[in-house]
Amino acid sequence: MVDIINYISQHHQHANIILSEHNIDELQHPSAGGHSLDDRVRLFTGEVKDIRFKADVLMTIGGDGTILRAVSQFSNFNVPPILSFSMGTLGFLLPFDVGSYRARVDELFANRLRVLQRSRLECHVIGTHPSEARVNMVHAMNEITLHRGSNPNLISLDVYVDGECLTSTTADGIIVSTPTGSTAYSLSSGGSIVHPSIRGLLLTPICPRSLSFRPLILPSTSDIMIRLSQKSRNVSVKLTIDGIELSDMRHGDEIHIRKQLDIDNHIWCMAQGDNDWTKDINDLLGFNKQFNESKR
Amino acid sequence: MVDIINYISQHHQHANIILSEHNIDELQHPSAGGHSLDDRVRLFTGEVKDIRFKADVLMTIGGDGTILRAVSQFSNFNVPPILSFSMGTLGFLLPFDVGSYRARVDELFANRLRVLQRSRLECHVIGTHPSEARVNMVHAMNEITLHRGSNPNLISLDVYVDGECLTSTTADGIIVSTPTGSTAYSLSSGGSIVHPSIRGLLLTPICPRSLSFRPLILPSTSDIMIRLSQKSRNVSVKLTIDGIELSDMRHGDEIHIRKQLDIDNHIWCMAQGDNDWTKDINDLLGFNKQFNESKR
Amino acid sequence: MVDIINYISQHHQHANIILSEHNIDELQHPSAGGHSLDDRVRLFTGEVKDIRFKADVLMTIGGDGTILRAVSQFSNFNVPPILSFSMGTLGFLLPFDVGSYRARVDELFANRLRVLQRSRLECHVIGTHPSEARVNMVHAMNEITLHRGSNPNLISLDVYVDGECLTSTTADGIIVSTPTGSTAYSLSSGGSIVHPSIRGLLLTPICPRSLSFRPLILPSTSDIMIRLSQKSRNVSVKLTIDGIELSDMRHGDEIHIRKQLDIDNHIWCMAQGDNDWTKDINDLLGFNKQFNESKR
Amino acid sequence: MVDIINYISQHHQHANIILSEHNIDELQHPSAGGHSLDDRVRLFTGEVKDIRFKADVLMTIGGDGTILRAVSQFSNFNVPPILSFSMGTLGFLLPFDVGSYRARVDELFANRLRVLQRSRLECHVIGTHPSEARVNMVHAMNEITLHRGSNPNLISLDVYVDGECLTSTTADGIIVSTPTGSTAYSLSSGGSIVHPSIRGLLLTPICPRSLSFRPLILPSTSDIMIRLSQKSRNVSVKLTIDGIELSDMRHGDEIHIRKQLDIDNHIWCMAQGDNDWTKDINDLLGFNKQFNESKR
Repeated sequence: MVDIINYISQHHQHANIILSEHNIDELQHPSAGGHSLDDRVRLFTGEVKDIRFKADVLMTIGGDGTILRAVSQFSNFNVPPILSFSMGTLGFLLPFDVGSYRARVDELFANRLRVLQRSRLECHVIGTHPSEARVNMVHAMNEITLHRGSNPNLISLDVYVDGECLTSTTADGIIVSTPTGSTAYSLSSGGSIVHPSIRGLLLTPICPRSLSFRPLILPSTSDIMIRLSQKSRNVSVKLTIDGIELSDMRHGDEIHIRKQLDIDNHIWCMAQGDNDWTKDINDLLGFNKQFNESKR
Repeated sequence: MVDIINYISQHHQHANIILSEHNIDELQHPSAGGHSLDDRVRLFTGEVKDIRFKADVLMTIGGDGTILRAVSQFSNFNVPPILSFSMGTLGFLLPFDVGSYRARVDELFANRLRVLQRSRLECHVIGTHPSEARVNMVHAMNEITLHRGSNPNLISLDVYVDGECLTSTTADGIIVSTPTGSTAYSLSSGGSIVHPSIRGLLLTPICPRSLSFRPLILPSTSDIMIRLSQKSRNVSVKLTIDGIELSDMRHGDEIHIRKQLDIDNHIWCMAQGDNDWTKDINDLLGFNKQFNESKR
Repeated sequence: MVDIINYISQHHQHANIILSEHNIDELQHPSAGGHSLDDRVRLFTGEVKDIRFKADVLMTIGGDGTILRAVSQFSNFNVPPILSFSMGTLGFLLPFDVGSYRARVDELFANRLRVLQRSRLECHVIGTHPSEARVNMVHAMNEITLHRGSNPNLISLDVYVDGECLTSTTADGIIVSTPTGSTAYSLSSGGSIVHPSIRGLLLTPICPRSLSFRPLILPSTSDIMIRLSQKSRNVSVKLTIDGIELSDMRHGDEIHIRKQLDIDNHIWCMAQGDNDWTKDINDLLGFNKQFNESKR
Repeated sequence: MVDIINYISQHHQHANIILSEHNIDELQHPSAGGHSLDDRVRLFTGEVKDIRFKADVLMTIGGDGTILRAVSQFSNFNVPPILSFSMGTLGFLLPFDVGSYRARVDELFANRLRVLQRSRLECHVIGTHPSEARVNMVHAMNEITLHRGSNPNLISLDVYVDGECLTSTTADGIIVSTPTGSTAYSLSSGGSIVHPSIRGLLLTPICPRSLSFRPLILPSTSDIMIRLSQKSRNVSVKLTIDGIELSDMRHGDEIHIRKQLDIDNHIWCMAQGDNDWTKDINDLLGFNKQFNESKR
C-alpha cells in the first residue's frame, strides 16, 4: 500500500489520496515495517460518512471480500469507479495483480482502463412493529440472503413480484442475487452463471421442500417483496447482505428490492479486457471441465 | 376462423384480411362446414414471400407451435405484432381464448391491448465447403439446438463468445435459447427460467460429459460461434431451429449468433396483463409446487 | 388414543399396553375429555430406559415427526416393529389412517400385516479433547446433518470412506442420509430418491463451493468418517440427527458412520402393500408432474 | 497381446489360451510386426457361441468400450471373471496398465487378485406384433437407453414397477442404468454417482418435460416395464444397450427388466484395491473439484 501511495503522489501529484481510518491505523502499525511513506505524501482521512462523497476512484488491495466491504461503505451512495488489486488470491473482481500497480495507476490517470458495468440491488427492510418502524435502505453487490440459520425448522416465505404473488416457499432460505453474485452463493445453491452485464437478478432457492423450484432470472426492473409467511413456524429469519449479517427479519417485516431507485445502482469496475469473465469462469470455477480419459 | 374473419370485416371494415394459402385451403375444405364466410368479406392471399411485408398484425389460432411456425415465416423479416388465440390448449404465448375474440379484436383496433416485448435470435449458418458455400440467415423465437440425433457417438463442440473460446464440450448437444425458449427445451435440459423481457440468451448443454457445465446466461449482445470440434468423432450434427430441422452441420461449418443484427429482433406479443408470466409459470409448469402434507 | 387402548384391551386381552410417561400425562389432561379409558384397562409405564426393552411392537399416532421421535428413543437399542397411524397428515411412514385402527390392530395380532424393512445409520461422535473424551453412539432413521448454522463462514469438511480420503468440501454442510431420508432434507439439497429397501446411504452436499459435487450413493457397509478440516475458518459445526440438535462438533472431533454395527440397524415398518412407496412419491412429492397443456 | 500370450504359455503352461476370431486376425496382420508368438504357444479359437462357455477368465486389452463389447458377447451367458488391461486410457473398469501384465498374470494364477462384484441388467424385449413376436433377452453392463433419436417429437413412455404404474414421462428418453453405468450416460443426464457394489438400478430421465422428475434408485429386485405410451406421437423409439443400437421399439412393444433372473447377473472384475472407486471418481471425473482461490 505504501508503495502505491508513494507512486501516486510522485507521478500524479494533482491527486488527493484519501485513506479510511482503518488504513491509517495499518500504516502506523510497526508491521508496516520496511516500507515508509515518502515525506512529500499528503494523506486525507476521516469517518466514512465524511469521506465517501469526496472519492472519484475507489482503490482496493486484497480479495473479493475486500471489495465487497469497501463497496458496502457506499451503501446508499453512488459508488465511484473501482480499481482493485489482488495480493495473490484469485477472484472475479480481481483483474489486476498488485505487482502491476505502476502500469495500472498510469492507465487510470490517462483514462485508458476499460470498465465493466456491474449493478447493485437496492434493498429496503420495512419493519411493521410500531415501536420500531424502521425503513432501512441497503445495497447489495453480490446477494441478499434470507436463511433459517441455526433454527431447526424450515422457513416459509412469500415472494411477490410487481405486486403479485409469485410463490410461497418452504426452504432453508432464498437468495436474491445480482449477476455479479451468480458465481457466489447462488451458484452453490444451483443457480445459473449469469454474465455481469445482464440487466437482471437471480431468485435462487436454498434447499426448498419442492422438486420444482427451478431458479429464476427476473428483470432488474422488477419490484420484489419477500416476507415470512404467516404459516412459518419460525418467528424470525436471518438476513445477510453480501456476507454481512443484519438484524433478523420477523413476522410482518418485509424486504423490498425496488425498481424505482433512489440511488444509481451501477458500479464501474476496471477490467483487463472484454472477456475477463469468460476466462474467469474457466480459471476460477473450472467451468465445464472435461473428464480425464487419458493418462497424464 | 370464419367467425373472426366475418367479425373483423363487419366491425372494422377498413382492415384488409390476408390469409396464408394454407388457410385458404382450409376455408374451402368441406369440414369448414356450418360456418360460412359473409358475402361482403374480401380476402387477400399469396405466397408467404409476397404477403409477409404487407402484414401489420399477425393473428394466429392454435397452440404455441402455431405461433412458432407463423413467426418462422418471418425469418429474415420484421415480425408484425402478434395476436394469438388459443383453442383450448395452454401456452406461454397464448394469453387469449378464442371465445373472447370479439373483445380482443376491438381492443386491437382501439390500440388498447398491452404488449410484451420478446426477442429472437439471429443465426447464420456458414458452410466452408467450397462447392456449397452457404450463408443462411434464420431467426429463432425459442431456441437453436445442435444435437447428435440418432448418431451413437457424443459430439464435441467448440463454443466461442466474442471471438474467444468459451469452452469445448462433449455432449448430446447444446441449446442456445431466448428467454422465451427458457420454458421449452432448455428447461428440460436443466436451464433456469428466464423472464421474456431479459436481454440475454441461455447457453444450456444437453447431457454433457462433465459435472461442471452449469447453464450460462449471456448478454444478447454477445457474438456466439459454435462449430464441430476437430476431435469430434461425428462428422455431422443435427441443427434444429424452433423444432424445425435444418440441414446437418458438418466439420468446418459454423453457426453464428450475431450481435450486429441485420433485422430487428424484437417481437411484440399482445398480452393480457403485466404478470401473465408469473401466472403462467405457476399454472403451466407447476412451478415450486409444495409437497402434499395433509389429506385431500 | 383412548379408543385404540380400549379396543386392544377388549379384543386382545393378552396384550400388555405400555405408554410413555408423556402419553400418560396426555391421558390425564382434561382435554382428553369425552373419551375415557375402560375400567378394565391396565396400563404400564416408566422411564424410556426402563420400558424400551419390553416393547414387542411400537405404535405411534401422529405424523412422520412422531415416528422419528419415537424411534430416536430406541437409539442404541433394537427398534421393535412399528405400526403408525396418521391423524390426517400424509407421510412416507404413514400408511394407515387412524380411523382404520380396528382392522389394523386385528391384522397385527393375526400377523397379517405386511412389513417394509428400512434401515438406520449408526453414528459415533468421537471427541478428541482430553477433558471430555466422549464417544456417543446415536442412530439416525432419516439423516445425519452437519451444517454451519448461523455461522457466517462456510465450513470445510474432510470426508473419509473406508479409511481413505474421499473428498474435502467447502459448503454450508453435508448430509449422510438413509434411503428413508432420501425424500427428506437430502431431496431438498438435490439428492436422488432412493427406495427404502436399498442397502446404501446417500452423501449429499448442502450448497457446496463446487460445480462437481454430484450426490453419491455408497454401500451401507461403508465406514464413513467426517471431521472439520484444519483449514476450516469455523471452529464448530452444528450436528443434527433426524432434526434433533446435538452438541456442536469442534476441530478434532470426528463423526463415524460405521459398518461393524453394535446394534441391528433394521427397522420393520408395517405397510399397506408392496408399492406404497411408488404411490407415495407420486401423491406426496408430486413426482414427475407433467406440465399443463390443456384447459382445466 | 503377443507378449502376454507368450508370457502365459511360458509361465502358466497348464492354461489354455482362447482368442476370439477377431484377435486371431489381428495377430496375423502384418502390423503385429516386431512381436511374434513363441513357437510353443498353442491357441484355441472359434465362433463366440462356441468358445464362450469354455472361458474361465476373460482378459481384455483396451478401453472401457473394449470391456463392454467383450461382456456383450456373454449376453445370456454367465460372464467369467474379467482381468482388463489399459493401453493408456483411463477408465472405471481399467485398474491395471498393460505394462504390469507379468505381475498381474502371476497374481491371477495364484488367486491373489482382488475382485469387485458388479452386476448386469437382464432385459427382455417383447414385441406384440403378431408377425414378429420376438422375445429377446439381452444383458446390459452399463445401461439400457430409450431415446427419440433424430425424431423431432418428444416421446411419451409409461414406466411400471412391480406391475404398478410408476409414472408416465414425456422426454427425450429414459435410462435404466446399473451402478457401474452411473458414471456414464446417467451421469450426463443428472443421475447420482452410485457405488458399483450397491444392489440397485438407476432410473434417470433424459431431458424430461417436467420440473419434478428427480432421478430414482430402485432395488435390483424390481420388475421394471417400459413401453411407448399410447399418447406418444412417435411410433418408434431407439433402444440402445451399452452403446449398441438394437432394433427400434414400436407401439405395443415392451421392455422388461426382470428380477427373476434366468442368468446370474453378477460380473467379477479384478481390482487393484478396495478403494479404486474412490480414487477413480476423483481422478477421472474431477469429483467435487474446489474452486481456484489462489494464484497457481
